[in-house]
Parts: sequence; structure tokens; C-alpha cells
Amino acid sequence: MPQPDHVTALAEADESMLPEDLVPYFQKCRDKLGFVPNVLRAWLLRPEKLRTFIKLYDELMLGPSGLSKLEREMIAVVVSSWNRCYYCLVAHGAAVRKLSDDPQLGEMMAFNYRVAELPHRQRAMLDFAVKLTAAPYDVAEADRDALSQHGFSDEDVFDICEVAGFFNYTNRVAHGVDMMPNVEYHTLAR
Amino acid sequence: MPQPDHVTALAEADESMLPEDLVPYFQKCRDKLGFVPNVLRAWLLRPEKLRTFIKLYDELMLGPSGLSKLEREMIAVVVSSWNRCYYCLVAHGAAVRKLSDDPQLGEMMAFNYRVAELPHRQRAMLDFAVKLTAAPYDVAEADRDALSQHGFSDEDVFDICEVAGFFNYTNRVAHGVDMMPNVEYHTLAR
Amino acid sequence: MPQPDHVTALAEADESMLPEDLVPYFQKCRDKLGFVPNVLRAWLLRPEKLRTFIKLYDELMLGPSGLSKLEREMIAVVVSSWNRCYYCLVAHGAAVRKLSDDPQLGEMMAFNYRVAELPHRQRAMLDFAVKLTAAPYDVAEADRDALSQHGFSDEDVFDICEVAGFFNYTNRVAHGVDMMPNVEYHTLAR
Amino acid sequence: MPQPDHVTALAEADESMLPEDLVPYFQKCRDKLGFVPNVLRAWLLRPEKLRTFIKLYDELMLGPSGLSKLEREMIAVVVSSWNRCYYCLVAHGAAVRKLSDDPQLGEMMAFNYRVAELPHRQRAMLDFAVKLTAAPYDVAEADRDALSQHGFSDEDVFDICEVAGFFNYTNRVAHGVDMMPNVEYHTLAR
Amino acid sequence: MPQPDHVTALAEADESMLPEDLVPYFQKCRDKLGFVPNVLRAWLLRPEKLRTFIKLYDELMLGPSGLSKLEREMIAVVVSSWNRCYYCLVAHGAAVRKLSDDPQLGEMMAFNYRVAELPHRQRAMLDFAVKLTAAPYDVAEADRDALSQHGFSDEDVFDICEVAGFFNYTNRVAHGVDMMPNVEYHTLAR
Amino acid sequence: MPQPDHVTALAEADESMLPEDLVPYFQKCRDKLGFVPNVLRAWLLRPEKLRTFIKLYDELMLGPSGLSKLEREMIAVVVSSWNRCYYCLVAHGAAVRKLSDDPQLGEMMAFNYRVAELPHRQRAMLDFAVKLTAAPYDVAEADRDALSQHGFSDEDVFDICEVAGFFNYTNRVAHGVDMMPNVEYHTLAR
Repeated sequence: MPQPDHVTALAEADESMLPEDLVPYFQKCRDKLGFVPNVLRAWLLRPEKLRTFIKLYDELMLGPSGLSKLEREMIAVVVSSWNRCYYCLVAHGAAVRKLSDDPQLGEMMAFNYRVAELPHRQRAMLDFAVKLTAAPYDVAEADRDALSQHGFSDEDVFDICEVAGFFNYTNRVAHGVDMMPNVEYHTLAR
Repeated sequence: MPQPDHVTALAEADESMLPEDLVPYFQKCRDKLGFVPNVLRAWLLRPEKLRTFIKLYDELMLGPSGLSKLEREMIAVVVSSWNRCYYCLVAHGAAVRKLSDDPQLGEMMAFNYRVAELPHRQRAMLDFAVKLTAAPYDVAEADRDALSQHGFSDEDVFDICEVAGFFNYTNRVAHGVDMMPNVEYHTLAR
Repeated sequence: MPQPDHVTALAEADESMLPEDLVPYFQKCRDKLGFVPNVLRAWLLRPEKLRTFIKLYDELMLGPSGLSKLEREMIAVVVSSWNRCYYCLVAHGAAVRKLSDDPQLGEMMAFNYRVAELPHRQRAMLDFAVKLTAAPYDVAEADRDALSQHGFSDEDVFDICEVAGFFNYTNRVAHGVDMMPNVEYHTLAR
Repeated sequence: MPQPDHVTALAEADESMLPEDLVPYFQKCRDKLGFVPNVLRAWLLRPEKLRTFIKLYDELMLGPSGLSKLEREMIAVVVSSWNRCYYCLVAHGAAVRKLSDDPQLGEMMAFNYRVAELPHRQRAMLDFAVKLTAAPYDVAEADRDALSQHGFSDEDVFDICEVAGFFNYTNRVAHGVDMMPNVEYHTLAR
Repeated sequence: MPQPDHVTALAEADESMLPEDLVPYFQKCRDKLGFVPNVLRAWLLRPEKLRTFIKLYDELMLGPSGLSKLEREMIAVVVSSWNRCYYCLVAHGAAVRKLSDDPQLGEMMAFNYRVAELPHRQRAMLDFAVKLTAAPYDVAEADRDALSQHGFSDEDVFDICEVAGFFNYTNRVAHGVDMMPNVEYHTLAR
Repeated sequence: MPQPDHVTALAEADESMLPEDLVPYFQKCRDKLGFVPNVLRAWLLRPEKLRTFIKLYDELMLGPSGLSKLEREMIAVVVSSWNRCYYCLVAHGAAVRKLSDDPQLGEMMAFNYRVAELPHRQRAMLDFAVKLTAAPYDVAEADRDALSQHGFSDEDVFDICEVAGFFNYTNRVAHGVDMMPNVEYHTLAR
């Protein structure tokens, strides 16, 4: 079984480091998912930063937005595919499968989103996210206009930028510390 | 279900085009796999070329070689991952899962082979295959030497080059004609 | 004066949207800097997300860390230089000039950090941050080892990854919404 | 004379390895060309694979197709130019010169096909082949449509993909084993 | 102060090497600028070549042309920004600031010219210069047509090509020999 | 014959524009080569600039240097190969063939210089020139040291940089104006 048996290549933080107010959050993960996602255990190396990271993540991916939760996960996966981030492809690929109840959609987002027969609106959203990932300095007025024409509001455009941006951040942390996903993700929602 | 419901974006060839001598081969596919792989149905558009394509494929991937069948499939997947070929990632990702009996290995090859804890020999083989794919003009004596030092014979080096090269060929045909994998692959050997 | 006269290309949020608890923060900006950084006014389009963004930023760039505040700003600028992010180059270039009291250091970080005669430790830190930005999938054990050999702890490595990752996030939001820096930054600490 | 004096950097196969049924083929090469192309001598290292390689090559480049033999050779050379494959540029550059009776056409295909004043149909064909070589995941419906609009049938599109794909295969084998062309090609059809 | 304290990484030429007829030119630099630009001191290593280099530079950047001196300096800076040339960004960034009397314009040209609100004609000119720098083989008839449509004459197109080309030359000499700009440029026209 | 029948895509300058003092130079070209190289006829569009261009070219390629004339032409061709400049590959490829009396050397420089069995010194020189062309910001002290270790003096390093830089200039002018080589070059020194 060649997946490395570690959370990250750095020292593993002990859960005794977990700030007291976050204990219920970890418990909720165990109750709902059956495990604490390794990204949280990785962040535990810098325990004072974990709280804000969780808050940012939850607002961004689960909070109110003109983008559905599935759409935000689709952005997460296409960005992570461009960056070839193993952790996020495994964990968020599972989320796409689960939220869409369509395992093939997860595969398409992870391998090459362009093959999917998506509503034009979603295709435009993903094209924008990938361009912003691959060549951010090439994004121009015409790209924002394309989103408007598909009905995205200015707030939606902001959210697309932020979700795409955020996974460019976590992809890099994951690559930088060699973060491994919980093995449970692999079989989720197949 | 957003995976396009076609074999390719080109006219679909009728199985009546299948040359008589290949009928048993298609039957063998149905018996063993339960279906005829779409790549063969795609090639049926040019039926006179199908025979040689099958022969080449079988010699390359199943014939005698210093590389195991699993190793050849691992090369297939890392090359297809670099080229982001949906067809080959789905079909050959399934083959890696099946031959290795390790679904995670399939995911690692498809997403980012560098995270896997592989024997040094296999890692060297895949590094060579990816370099030959991404920047063929950069492959030099030192790269071949690295393979020799891991025990690969000259015949093995040739086979690595040929398998890597072959998937650079089929990846491009698949991209060029928008070839879709049989949906059965998705659930195979999970 | 060709710098666009807008905060972003999206609808400009009214400061009346500012959540009450953040009013003192904006006031503190005005007192200390003389203005509210445009990045905060941009985020005001999604006012409920502003609080966490501020908290993340402050912990990351101003909180306790084995990296000095100047080192974190140097990472910010070299990442933004790779991504050619006008907003961050102007705003964080100013921060490097101010914290280092060395205007030329700001120019070197913004134009090409490799010309600078830096302590080897800082050069290694910036090389890692740029590699993680430009080709995150190429970062490997050897890159982390190089940081260790220059005395960076595992927590420091995490912080380097996080700061570099974070600016890959904000650079993309800035590009995506065409965010313009406050003109005051241009003359700061020259 | 700096062209390496070898067929490949690997062990050179003895012609005694040549399967009996292929002896007439080698003889035909000697009769028609005056020499056996080195690519065949390279493949002799894996003699059981040589037969199918020859068959594939002949069907692809010489068999019935909506593309002329010259057009197939033009694709061969522009693909090999993108991949900077010395063997194929020398051998197939000579083929373009010979089939077209226009040495300058050979030079243009090898150096930069875009300078040539070609029929729009051929220019579209080469643009497609180069895009499929350089960025296969970017090829989309619009690219296939452009071919249709220039009168290419679906079978022709398949053949363009296959020829372009095939040279992405042989270019990589040639780079991988450092295959050198027969010196006779250099002066052919100048 | 981390800017290296040398003209170049090569042996520094003594001003006694200066050909007699160029002594007045160096004096004029000192009178007008207060210093001799380091690029001239770098070229003094090959004193017989300095005369022609000066002549070429003066004709190109100061001689009669349909492009204003400022426009030529803007091309210089966007090309140098693409190539990340520290010397030219510092020296010619200062020239843009001075000629335009607009420090922000200098920053925009150096960091990312696409954010600037320029007359369409100038934007087209810079787009052409950057494309010619980044992917010269992609420049085509349509790109020249875009310039014509903005009123550039054939002579102007030639001058745009020449100025862009010239800085691709000097950027590479500067990178190749690690040329450092005179520190006086940093504060010029801020 | 698909090579465009023009000097450049711009207005063709009349030879009556030739400054009087350059008439003998054009005559010398006709006497020695049998024709005036098209690059000079292209520059005639800006006749006042032709004189300095000729002077620069002659000093650089024919003047005293630690690099032989052939070595300078080899640099010209490998740079032009990287940039895929048809004009320079045809014209300077011919020069390499002529100066070396080895047509194959010309082909290797134009197609892929890495296949050539060159003295280590020349290989190092060409590696440096190509790196300076392809990724100038990556050239570092170690690259200059490699040249020193092969016996190149500081003046030689300067000349390598200048010749490589110069062809990055002329390649871009040639691409920018679609400059075509004189057809006589094709058959020269085959």
C-alpha cells in the first residue's frame, strides 16, 4: 500500500495541542464523517491558526453564496486537478461524488473537466476558475463579462475568485508539507 | 449524468464494419470484460486499421517484457495523467486497481504519482516516462543511466520508451476525437 | 493617470455594509496608515466574510512565527512577482521597504529576488516559496530538507508554505476582480 | 562529424535477429532506398515487435486515406518539429522534399510551418496537429469543426489525429533511445 | 543593502579602456545624469564594441520615429518585465517615470501593464511587444493588422519590433553577466 | 512553392533609399554572395538605422573574439531554433554548413543541438546560450562558472551573452515582420 502512512512529512502534532474550544468541532467530524480530516490534523502543528482556518473554510464552502455547495466543490476539484494536488483531489473528489450522487462527475472534475456535458453556466464558472489558477495575469474584463452573461452576480464572481484562490492556497500547503488524505475518502460515495 | 453519451464526437461506426476475422476478438472482450472497450469501437471508423492497432496494443501491454503488466499500466496512467486524457485515466486507472488489487495505487498514479511510496526502481521508471512525455528533448544519457542503475536492461529501456510513447499517441487520438470510456470502468476493482 | 480609479471592477460596496464590530478596525487603519487598504474595501462586497479574512491575515502576517514580519512580507512579494499581481506588489512592496528601511530591497523582491545578496537562509526560503508557487507538484523531500539545513523548524516550514499559499490566494482574488491598490502605497518608504 | 555513429544509445541488435518473414522487407528497403532505415534497426532490439510496427507504419503513412501521402508526411514533420526530434526531422523532412519535389517546403515544415503559404485546408490540418501535440487537453469541438469546414470527413479527422499521435509516439522512442537517422537522408531530394 | 556592489559578475573594465572618441560621451552622461549608466561600464569589457552599442541605443530610443520616446520606454519596460530583468526594470522604469511625470505609470509597466488604462493604440502596441517577447513564433498577420488598425504605419511596426527585440537582447546580456543598475535610478522621478 | 515571395510583410523599401555610403556594402554582398541578404533589404525600410545594424552585426559575428566565427554561428542557430525563426535558421544554418564544411552539423544545430557529439567546451557554450534564451532569469553564478571551467574568459562569456542576445533580437524582428530568407541559402553548402 504505497500511500505514505503519515499526515504530513513534518512532525505530527499531538491532539493534546488542540485548543479546548475546538474539541467539539473535532468530535463533530468524528460523528459525521467517522474521522478528523487530515488537513485539520496538519494545521494542528500551528494550533493557534487552526480556529481561523476552520472558520474560513466553513464560510467559504458551506456559508451562504449564490454558488451551490456542489458548485464550490467542483471549483475545488478542477483547481486541484490543475495543480495536481493529491490530498484535495481525493478529499474533494469524494465531496463532489457525494453532493452530486454521481461518481462519474467526480472523476471528470478530477481528470479533465472539459469532457463533462455541463450547463453552460457551470462550464463558464470552471473555465474562469482554471484560467485564474493557471494564468491569473491573463484574466481580463472579457472573462468577467462571460460570467455576467451566464447570470453570475458580482457577489458570485467574487465567490468564484475566492474559492478558486483558496484552493490555490491549500493545494500549495498540501504539496509543501506532503499532506496525505484519510484513506476513508477513497471509498466514499463510489 | 454529464459524461457524454457517445463513443467519440465523430460518426459512430456500425459493428457491421467489423472485419470478419476480428469478430472473435470482440466476443472475447464481451466474455472477459462484459463489454467492448470504446477505443476499439472508435477505431472501427477505420476498420482496416483496427487489426494492427489491436495487435500493437496486445504485444505492448500483454506480451513478454522485462516490465510487469502492472508496471506497463502504471506508465500508461502517469503518461495519461500528464496529458489529462480522460479516456485513458478511467480505463487504465481501472487496470492498475485490478492488477495491483490496490485502489489507492490507481488514484495516486492518476492524480500525482510522486506521492506514492514506490520501490526506487518503479519511481525511476515513472520519472523517465513523465520526462519523456513532458519534455522529450530534455531526455539525455543521464536519464538512461539512471534506469540502468536501477537494473533495467536495454530491452527494458526500449519498452519503457515504447509504452510511454504509445500512450502519448492514444491520449492524442482520444483527445482529438473526444473518446469516452465505457462507464463500466468506473466501478471496476474499487 | 492610467491607474484605474476603482477599488475593483465589481460593484463597490458601501461602507455602511461594514459589520459593527469591524468599525474600530477600519478606524485603526485610518489612524495608523491614513487610509483603509483597498483589499478590505473589496472584501466588503461580502461583508460576512471580511471578519475572518482580517483575522487570517493578521495571524499569518503579524502573529507569532519563527519567520520575522519582514521575511513574511518578502515571501508575499516574491510570490506576487511570480504571479504579476499589481495590487500585492504595490502594497507589500511598500511593506518590505518600510520594514527593512531599504527601498532597494523592495525593488529586488518585486522585480527579481534572485539578484539580491541575501543570507543563504532567506534565499532558501524564497526559492522554496517561488517553487511552491510556480510548480507546486515539483516540491519534494529534498526541498524541505534544504529548509531544515538552513535551520528552519517544521513549524517554520509550515509557515513558509502557508504565507506562500495565502498570497497565491489573494493574488488570484486581486487579478480576478481587478483590484487596485491605494495610491498612497506608491510613495510610502521610498 | 559530430552526428553520433550509432543507431541508438542502446545495444545494437544484430540483423541475425531479424525474423525470417521480414527479411524480404529489409531487402526491399535496400533496393528502393539503398539502406534500411535506422528506426527499423532500432526496433530490432525487440524483434517480435518489429513486424507490427512496420505494419502500423505502412497502413498509417502509405495506406488508403483521405489525406495524401505528402499531407501525412507534412503532419509527421510539424509534429516532430514541435517535439524537436532529430531523427524524424531528418528522415521525414527528406520525405516531404521528395514527395513535394520542393526542398523549401521541407525546410518550412521542419523550422516553422506557419511561414508557408499553404492552401487553407492544409494549414488547418497542421494547426490541428500541432495543437494536439502541444496541448492535447485544449483540443475542443471548435477545432474539429474547423476541420469539417475545410472539407475533412470524420475519417479524415481520425487519420489526422492518428498520424499526429503516432509521431508523438515515435518522436518519444527516438528521443528516449537517442536514435540517429541514416546519413543518406541528409542529401536526399535537395 | 543587498543589491550587489558590482557592475557585473565579470571582471570590471577600467575606464582607461575607454576609446578616446567616447570620452566626451561619458562626460555628457556625468553632466546630464550625474553618473555613467552601468550598462556602458559593462560594455567597456569589450571596448571596441561600445561605440556601436551606444549608436544603436541612441538611434533606437532617441532617434526619429513614429513612436514617442515615452512609448519606446514603455515597450522597454514591459519587455523587461516579462523577462524579469532587474537592470532594465530599474533603469527604464525610471525613464518612464521621468518622461511621463507619472510614477504610477512606471510601476504599472514594471509590474503588470495590463492593469493600466491606456489609449487603445498604446495597449495594442504593448500587447504586440509582449507577444513578440513571450511567443515570437505565434505572431501572425492578425497581430500586424491590429497595429495597422490603430494607426501604426509600417515603419512604426518595424520600430515596435526593433525596440521589443532590442530589449530581449539587452535583458539577456544583463541576466547573463548579472548587471546591476546604478543606485541613483531608484529615487529618480519618484 | 509555398515560401512567401516577399522580403517582409511590410512595405518593401526601394533600393533608392539606400544611403550613399552603403552602396559599396550592398555591392560587396552581390559580389561575394551573389545577392543582398533580405535582412538588409528589410532594414532599408528605416534606412538611417541600416548603417548601425550592419556595423553591429559585423563586429559581433566577424570581429575579433575568443569565439571562432563558426562558434558564433552555432550560437546563432541554436538560439534561432529555440525561437523557431525561419529566416535565421535558413540563413545561419547555411553559414554553419559553410564554415564547418559539415552539412550535418548545420542540421543538428537547427533541429536539436543536443544530439551532436561536440567538444564539451562547445556543448557548455550552447547550453548557456539556450538557457539564456529560454529562461534568462534562471541563469545564475553556477552557469557562468561552468563556462569558466571550460576555459572561457570573462570576455568570452560576454561575447556568448551578446551573440545569444543579439539573435533573440533579430529573431523577434524577423518574426514580427515575417521576414523571408533569400532562396539561395537553401542550397548553399549542402
